[in-house]
Amino acid sequence: MFDFTATYTDLYQISMAQVYFQKGKKDDCAVFDYYFRKIPYNGGYAVFAGLGDLLKTIEQLQFSEEDIAYLSTQNFDTEFLAYLKDFKFTGSIYSVQEGDVVFANQTILQVEASMVEAQLIETILLNLLNFQTLIATKASRVKLVAKNKTLLDFGLRRAQGPGGYFASKAAMIGGFHGTSNVIVGRDYNIPISGTMAHSFIQSYDDELEAFRDFAECRPTNCVLLVDTYDTLKSGIPNAIIVAKEMEAKGQKLLAIRLDSGDLAYYAAQSRKLLDEAGLEYVKIAVSNQLDEFVIKSLQEQEAPIDIYGVGTNLVIGKPNGALDGVYKLSFSNGTPRIKISESLIKTTLPYRKQVYRMKDKNGKFIGADAIAIYTESKVNIQHHPHEPYKQLEVAHYDQEPLLSEVMKDGKKLIPDYSLQELAAYSKSRIDLLMREYKRFDNPHIYKVGISTQLKEERDRLIQLHK
Amino acid sequence: MFDFTATYTDLYQISMAQVYFQKGKKDDCAVFDYYFRKIPYNGGYAVFAGLGDLLKTIEQLQFSEEDIAYLSTQNFDTEFLAYLKDFKFTGSIYSVQEGDVVFANQTILQVEASMVEAQLIETILLNLLNFQTLIATKASRVKLVAKNKTLLDFGLRRAQGPGGYFASKAAMIGGFHGTSNVIVGRDYNIPISGTMAHSFIQSYDDELEAFRDFAECRPTNCVLLVDTYDTLKSGIPNAIIVAKEMEAKGQKLLAIRLDSGDLAYYAAQSRKLLDEAGLEYVKIAVSNQLDEFVIKSLQEQEAPIDIYGVGTNLVIGKPNGALDGVYKLSFSNGTPRIKISESLIKTTLPYRKQVYRMKDKNGKFIGADAIAIYTESKVNIQHHPHEPYKQLEVAHYDQEPLLSEVMKDGKKLIPDYSLQELAAYSKSRIDLLMREYKRFDNPHIYKVGISTQLKEERDRLIQLHK
Repeated sequence: MFDFTATYTDLYQISMAQVYFQKGKKDDCAVFDYYFRKIPYNGGYAVFAGLGDLLKTIEQLQFSEEDIAYLSTQNFDTEFLAYLKDFKFTGSIYSVQEGDVVFANQTILQVEASMVEAQLIETILLNLLNFQTLIATKASRVKLVAKNKTLLDFGLRRAQGPGGYFASKAAMIGGFHGTSNVIVGRDYNIPISGTMAHSFIQSYDDELEAFRDFAECRPTNCVLLVDTYDTLKSGIPNAIIVAKEMEAKGQKLLAIRLDSGDLAYYAAQSRKLLDEAGLEYVKIAVSNQLDEFVIKSLQEQEAPIDIYGVGTNLVIGKPNGALDGVYKLSFSNGTPRIKISESLIKTTLPYRKQVYRMKDKNGKFIGADAIAIYTESKVNIQHHPHEPYKQLEVAHYDQEPLLSEVMKDGKKLIPDYSLQELAAYSKSRIDLLMREYKRFDNPHIYKVGISTQLKEERDRLIQLHK
Repeated sequence: MFDFTATYTDLYQISMAQVYFQKGKKDDCAVFDYYFRKIPYNGGYAVFAGLGDLLKTIEQLQFSEEDIAYLSTQNFDTEFLAYLKDFKFTGSIYSVQEGDVVFANQTILQVEASMVEAQLIETILLNLLNFQTLIATKASRVKLVAKNKTLLDFGLRRAQGPGGYFASKAAMIGGFHGTSNVIVGRDYNIPISGTMAHSFIQSYDDELEAFRDFAECRPTNCVLLVDTYDTLKSGIPNAIIVAKEMEAKGQKLLAIRLDSGDLAYYAAQSRKLLDEAGLEYVKIAVSNQLDEFVIKSLQEQEAPIDIYGVGTNLVIGKPNGALDGVYKLSFSNGTPRIKISESLIKTTLPYRKQVYRMKDKNGKFIGADAIAIYTESKVNIQHHPHEPYKQLEVAHYDQEPLLSEVMKDGKKLIPDYSLQELAAYSKSRIDLLMREYKRFDNPHIYKVGISTQLKEERDRLIQLHK
């Protein structure tokens, strides 16, 4: 659906690009790091998402004629505009795999390109990765508590405009099973789901007639919304009548949906009525302001719910709403670069890097990732990034390198993974993470450290700037 | 940038549409109401936005061949799909003017169309109006405290994916002056702004050289970012050197930007240094996690700041992230419709309606809107919607009807207002609202009531359903 054009960016990227162009710095080789500073939802991990969309977007990113015509009204240099007309990203990208678990202050992705090219993709990169990672992480949290229950995204109507498109998609990476969002089903080949709105039933004089018409016209995956008038006295009894009529035609009612009231109570009562009518196979779906905490509570109450429809709180990544991912220069023109900050915690890390994940003999994550200069093939000691006396011996662990080249000379090197593949990969990685990192309250802190060599280089550069 | 196609919707809309189509209810005339239940940010008013985009989208909304091909794999009826192929919205829309102040549980917009058409536009309608109203309202709150200072939107990198496009646009309706978002500048003819990133300065060995190159290549509206190394010892002194060099060439440095640390302190110190150097005209811009509360505090401290750059908190509508706008059936097939809820407050209002805003002799809003059946030309008493004994005599007020026909037979009746026009209209309306409704803490509650006739009709229908 989306054809991002290269003016989908912040003005300052183009302004800086012109200066690089005019001052002969255009082709200076630069490395930028993508990472975030805080795991969303006060959680213990995040799920990295958006890489596939990003690479596809960058491969074809260009300034349209309309873009150039517009920019020519904004005080840009004529030669520079001629250059932009033929702009194409020709650099390399190194990245963690989409769907993997990632942590704060860890290099997740690096761009190696000319200054101009690296700068002109910053905004779209942050825009796509920050949001999809935010939503995939939220979905993953819901998935953890919902266990084997079916999870559906119903959020488009309350999403942040077309942000809803990528929200529905990212939710699948985090473990959702389907969405109500038709265009995302179309574009990403994922199951679409839906029932009926209250307005459908209101438009009839009689609830039973509404149910009958719906079951007749849409018998496949038929779900009846039972709370328009009175769930237990009207909705469920009418649904039972229709389910029996469907049986007579060799059809099966898939589920009833509850959208208001005390969901645990109504689910239990509905289950009882359905079972008494011999409709043990009819599932119960619920919706209405769900999030991971409400679902956790419903699960703990053993509410007989089979399908959770999650809307607003999922697709806007409530309560955070944004991931604070940043894009920082770490190398340019042959020189390692840092941005000094008042606190060491915000000082950036120089050089192109590799990140090693420590694993035990069984392949489980031990809870430590070490950031190293990319030429280091192994890390012996990982140092706390800003507490000078904290360090961890890691030489004896299996060390999995997380960053691999995913784009070279502007060409994507990895296949188009399906959302099902990304979700399966994500699940396999979350399974390797100890449960202490997955709890909602004060999760264990995954250690992200730096190698001795990277630490020494960083500290040397800090001294140099003083 | 956005070509919304008709599968940008929830599956259930299309499912319900098929039932209406097959059961002869396709052309039943329906009326749906758009309203929200809670004013965002615990505020006293909201700014209605998104109408222009919505009408343009609906005018051209259709199912593409790709959509139809996809839907044909999803168990839809062949004749119905043939109908969808030629789908076009041919109904009417009545609406409050874009930019006006609106309140909770007040009819803001009504759609009058066939059941199928009304249902097939629900999702895009809610998706566009909810989000833009959320952001225009946020922007308006920032504007209230920032008074005559310049407000710039810098949020695209942390926005919810392409939601950022409409966020930047809606911010202008709420009173912002410009955005860093280039494509929105292109598409809506609004000023774009931008300075430089820290990476620009880091890419040089020397801050002064970076400033000089930037000023040379981008002298118009030149803003220098001064906090990369040391604001007061390096950034400002270097900016002063460059400003003087620009003066010698007959140019003027527009501003310096602060992006970290205590903004009130650094703004004051920077102002002092600039003034001492005879650079009283150089403005001070600040950014870094701003919102209406931080800006209010900076203004109360009389920080010498001229330009506020607001990012994440603006474009994601923090902390709400979503407006809870709904779309409820109020009339169909010749019959008024209501949805009964456990509480009267959530029970919907039947009929096509008009909303009257009460004004005093000076044209100021007195703080009361009355919802009436559309045939009522005046309201004498407005009743509290769910507290039976609360009512207000309003016959003596000037009564401004808020809903007017903005689309007829699927054609937009209103012009394409510029964002500047919408912002000016919005400001004129906010100015008519007493300040008690605009404060952040426990604002005065604007009274939204219902006419005697509407109340009697609603109560009659509730009885009927019992």
